[in-house]
Amino acid sequence: MEWKNFDQLESLRLFAETKPMDLKETLDSAAGATRVETCHVPMAAGLDYNYAAKAVDQKILLALVKLAEEAQLADKYRALYNGAMMNTGEQRLVLHQLTRGQLGDDVVVDGVNKRDFYRKEQERIADFANQVHRGQISNEKGEKFTSVVQIGIGGSDLGPRAMYLALEGWAKTNQSFQMDAHFISNVDPDDATAVLSGIDVAHAIFILVSKSGTTLETLTNQAFVMDALRKEGLEPARHMIAVTSETSPLAHSDDFLTAFYMDDFIGGRYSSTSGVGGAVLSLAFGPEIFDRFLQGAHAEDLLAKETDPMKNPDMLDALIGVYERNILGYPSTAVLPYSQALSRFPAHLQQLDMESNGKSVNRDGQPVDYPTGPVIFGEPGTNGQHSFYQLLHQGTDIIPLQFVGFKRSQRANDVTIEGSSSQQKLDANVAAQIVAFACGKEDENRNKNFKGGRPSSIIVGEELTPEALGALLAHFENKIMFQGFVWNLNSFDQEGVQLGKTLARKVLSGQTQGVLTAYSRLLGL
Amino acid sequence: MEWKNFDQLESLRLFAETKPMDLKETLDSAAGATRVETCHVPMAAGLDYNYAAKAVDQKILLALVKLAEEAQLADKYRALYNGAMMNTGEQRLVLHQLTRGQLGDDVVVDGVNKRDFYRKEQERIADFANQVHRGQISNEKGEKFTSVVQIGIGGSDLGPRAMYLALEGWAKTNQSFQMDAHFISNVDPDDATAVLSGIDVAHAIFILVSKSGTTLETLTNQAFVMDALRKEGLEPARHMIAVTSETSPLAHSDDFLTAFYMDDFIGGRYSSTSGVGGAVLSLAFGPEIFDRFLQGAHAEDLLAKETDPMKNPDMLDALIGVYERNILGYPSTAVLPYSQALSRFPAHLQQLDMESNGKSVNRDGQPVDYPTGPVIFGEPGTNGQHSFYQLLHQGTDIIPLQFVGFKRSQRANDVTIEGSSSQQKLDANVAAQIVAFACGKEDENRNKNFKGGRPSSIIVGEELTPEALGALLAHFENKIMFQGFVWNLNSFDQEGVQLGKTLARKVLSGQTQGVLTAYSRLLGL
Repeated sequence: MEWKNFDQLESLRLFAETKPMDLKETLDSAAGATRVETCHVPMAAGLDYNYAAKAVDQKILLALVKLAEEAQLADKYRALYNGAMMNTGEQRLVLHQLTRGQLGDDVVVDGVNKRDFYRKEQERIADFANQVHRGQISNEKGEKFTSVVQIGIGGSDLGPRAMYLALEGWAKTNQSFQMDAHFISNVDPDDATAVLSGIDVAHAIFILVSKSGTTLETLTNQAFVMDALRKEGLEPARHMIAVTSETSPLAHSDDFLTAFYMDDFIGGRYSSTSGVGGAVLSLAFGPEIFDRFLQGAHAEDLLAKETDPMKNPDMLDALIGVYERNILGYPSTAVLPYSQALSRFPAHLQQLDMESNGKSVNRDGQPVDYPTGPVIFGEPGTNGQHSFYQLLHQGTDIIPLQFVGFKRSQRANDVTIEGSSSQQKLDANVAAQIVAFACGKEDENRNKNFKGGRPSSIIVGEELTPEALGALLAHFENKIMFQGFVWNLNSFDQEGVQLGKTLARKVLSGQTQGVLTAYSRLLGL
Repeated sequence: MEWKNFDQLESLRLFAETKPMDLKETLDSAAGATRVETCHVPMAAGLDYNYAAKAVDQKILLALVKLAEEAQLADKYRALYNGAMMNTGEQRLVLHQLTRGQLGDDVVVDGVNKRDFYRKEQERIADFANQVHRGQISNEKGEKFTSVVQIGIGGSDLGPRAMYLALEGWAKTNQSFQMDAHFISNVDPDDATAVLSGIDVAHAIFILVSKSGTTLETLTNQAFVMDALRKEGLEPARHMIAVTSETSPLAHSDDFLTAFYMDDFIGGRYSSTSGVGGAVLSLAFGPEIFDRFLQGAHAEDLLAKETDPMKNPDMLDALIGVYERNILGYPSTAVLPYSQALSRFPAHLQQLDMESNGKSVNRDGQPVDYPTGPVIFGEPGTNGQHSFYQLLHQGTDIIPLQFVGFKRSQRANDVTIEGSSSQQKLDANVAAQIVAFACGKEDENRNKNFKGGRPSSIIVGEELTPEALGALLAHFENKIMFQGFVWNLNSFDQEGVQLGKTLARKVLSGQTQGVLTAYSRLLGL
């Protein structure tokens, strides 16, 4: 395998021979409808990636295919899941895909088959969750636990929280809902106070999640919660479990009922399919639902092995994103799920993408000279339509869009008004928006004029089931991985978060000077 | 007054004589601490706007002052609150500041003094809320209402929701909490279903909010809720009030217990201080708290009258933003409140800013040739630190930052661990981040190297009280207004949201062709 910086790829020259596709003209033409029917790649779990409204014609796609070949995207993915050292900065393997299935060779580290290890932990979690649901594991009074509270931040919070919210309605409708889940993340004491005041602490089980066991916010909130439990006359160790690495100070501790393990090969933002997501989702919905979620993710991981980008939805999405970022120069991307259940999915993707590819050095630590990861933001539709879409439609910058939509709602409760259900109104809006963005509409009143030419893709599914959610998550994880390969980045470390932590410790220990002292004073410290 | 496009302003030439300030060098120098102490402008309610970590030196600030003079920012604000026709596209006045106090001349339209009108509606709402709280207005069984549910979207949702969340903890701690509030916005039927399943419908009062009375999502959700009430054997008209304009189909309707009025001079995204925010906040916290919130906003509005930008925090913030957007070319801005209570404040600002200034035509409807409103995104700290801050610190693009922090928490519940409280840890982190972004840190390992030079400002307050929240909100409203003046935009219409609505109606009525038909089919319609 060869690792070349993006600007060293010879196939980049092919783009000099392409010209930007006129999206408006193409979609407005007689061939427009055919394009919608043909420009798509099936994903796992019945999802479908449709890129008809992306400004990519055959010539551009051909150049992207060549780029993928030259950058050896399929080879690098294969190397990754077979256990190559892909997190170069931290000298770690990258194995989150193995938490949901076997993709290639066995990966054995220090005599441990990692797939077996992840599966065993999943089974231990399933067993624990079943015992909690049956009341075999209970509180001091022998009463069932009714709530689960995850204490974690960043990857230990955003992904699991987004997944919980994504499946809560589905689980409630499909009789698999077991326990309501809550999340404490921020070191702001108002966060923990608010969550604790909203639950029945005596019937709550807390999951402390920190891979290293040293995360400032999480340990602080652990102490916060232990304090609250003691004030209620409860024994913290009867109410708390841990998800951590075996080498962390939290492992094998008497502070917890039990602990479940992950390892350094699972990055925080990629940990939703490990015990980090597994414990809270298995407790909330039951282990079978978590397993179905994993199956969806695994099926998408398998699709991502396809070497031809035109048949690989994750790779194609990645390549079109690179075209928009580096050839067309668009600095941000909006994620717009038409599903209220995905309300926090954009926040999770924001971390996943920006923390993975928001880098200025290549995988060998050498500075790069080209734009890497874009800004990611978004809110669910139709809400966003009444908010920031104004800028998306008529602002001076073009912002590529990623829609997600489903044909059916999750909760099977709807009303028909003026001849259409709410779900139909929702879906009519996403169809309308794609066309409005792409084709625009001329108006003599320039204030009402829509230039169009604003590109989007859409992932469409029947319903947001556990499998569909797994596939959706894995799609974006894999997309980001492929983009990291194209840009020659290490998408799996996050050195950029360290300096702030170091300086915060200095402030707290009073070891500041100059401008840091001044800012500390400004904040009343 | 003269209306010139931004690129016609002669004072722009002054920037050719400036060079970018070296932020890292300036803050790292002996003068750095002094800069933190001196580069600030007091805001209302004890807040303070500090721009020490913005890359603006005396020469650049002088150019910005000249720009403000030439663009007649103070004059245009005065004209606006005195009743000039500022929403040129829709031919409407812009009077949201009058919902919270008298700033200048009386504004009389069709014989009605608008300030008196807004105050009267506020008083009617206060009276209504007091009667609900005392149980004089009650449900069919004569029982007190315990929950309030706002049904609205966009400006009728994001602002009021963000304000509710911002004050919920404060109100609970300060014994002014009256009723819990919920929000239904999305046309996705899963949204309404989830909210309704989480509340006691028999003791809930619903506020239907739509200025026009024709918003698709809101009317659909009204029907959804009326259906749910009837299924419980409840009479919808006993559980529902409206906030609308006097000319809307919702006014004077038997469907509601009562209605409160706003008018076309209050834009949706600027309506938090009108009845749109007033009804839900007065019911949730009591009218006195809502009044204190208005007082904070009014005090900030008064400060914004100052003609010297160096003494006007709203205008100065606006000008520095223009410098970053148009001279330095940064396409997005992150809003980072270090307060969990402000969890949805960035989503509100996203609408406020992007819907106001995401425009490509000037106030006369002529295309402009310069970048206008940036992309706005953000999440609360410290959460964001473990997420997208990686890109902010080490990504290839520079993204200006807007921090917000408070010295005290709202809920007066904290723990001390390792010598510091959670609030101190929170504040230490914001101080540390500002310095980390601005000054960076060299490291031979380029992967651990921080270039610095990433600009930020911070608004600091003692505590997030109702007054402080009002001042914070008005600060951003006024900042965006001033930027709109500089860019010669009409910041008060939103024609960019219309085309999608029109096309969605076509889909729902089956009147589609070509690509719109194809996308409708793709979505299962």
